[in-house]
Amino acid sequence: MAYRTDNVFAKILRGELPAHRVYEDEHSLAFMDLMPQAEGHTLVIPRYPAEDLLDLPPEHLRHTVVTAQRVAQAVKRAFAAEGIMLAQLSGAAAGQTVFHVHFHILPRSGGIDLRLHARKPAPSELLAEHARRIRAALEP
Amino acid sequence: MAYRTDNVFAKILRGELPAHRVYEDEHSLAFMDLMPQAEGHTLVIPRYPAEDLLDLPPEHLRHTVVTAQRVAQAVKRAFAAEGIMLAQLSGAAAGQTVFHVHFHILPRSGGIDLRLHARKPAPSELLAEHARRIRAALEP
Repeated sequence: MAYRTDNVFAKILRGELPAHRVYEDEHSLAFMDLMPQAEGHTLVIPRYPAEDLLDLPPEHLRHTVVTAQRVAQAVKRAFAAEGIMLAQLSGAAAGQTVFHVHFHILPRSGGIDLRLHARKPAPSELLAEHARRIRAALEP
Repeated sequence: MAYRTDNVFAKILRGELPAHRVYEDEHSLAFMDLMPQAEGHTLVIPRYPAEDLLDLPPEHLRHTVVTAQRVAQAVKRAFAAEGIMLAQLSGAAAGQTVFHVHFHILPRSGGIDLRLHARKPAPSELLAEHARRIRAALEP
């Protein structure tokens, strides 16, 4: 499947859709998942237009994963998370729903099963507050 | 928690325990998960002794994730997988059971929930055959 420039994350990257941003640099962007599976559920994406992990050029993958690590550290601090799960779903069969490659950062507790379905939108004010907490935890 | 050199993956890295290896280089190693959640479930680890994603130095993270990408491409080819999930669990609360940082590569189908429990060991001959298929798919 070819990359489609009308996907939601491409629109966020172009500023055509809003997002609760927590970090951005030349190569990558991090923002709150609109339908969080846990408080602090954050997404990290490359600016590069790749559909999934398999077709992201390695130099962009390297940048994105280091951003994901930094954001994961901040999410852990901001939410006093016991554990962190990093997940990347490539392909509809893997549960991918937006076809711009993205890494999920999920605070985890209790070692329980991950649920990739039954997602519900969170109130915007709540996500804005969560984004603020993560941005604060990113500061040195 | 400090890194413990007696963990299972450290022993595999030192050659003290066997593993069905599919790829290795100066910085990273990939081998079959002993208790696969799906056919082709492969693990990718850095040689660097870090407990989880949060304390892996970025230069080692960059190497490891590019290896994970290469192996993911090979697993997808080797098992004709519809989708691929990359997962990294940091902390017991996230489901981590071996405390040397590792990335899971999982062939996925149907977008179904991931189960992180109820793991069962697979027969050694089966894992050896799967490792051969992935190694073959890694060749240019």
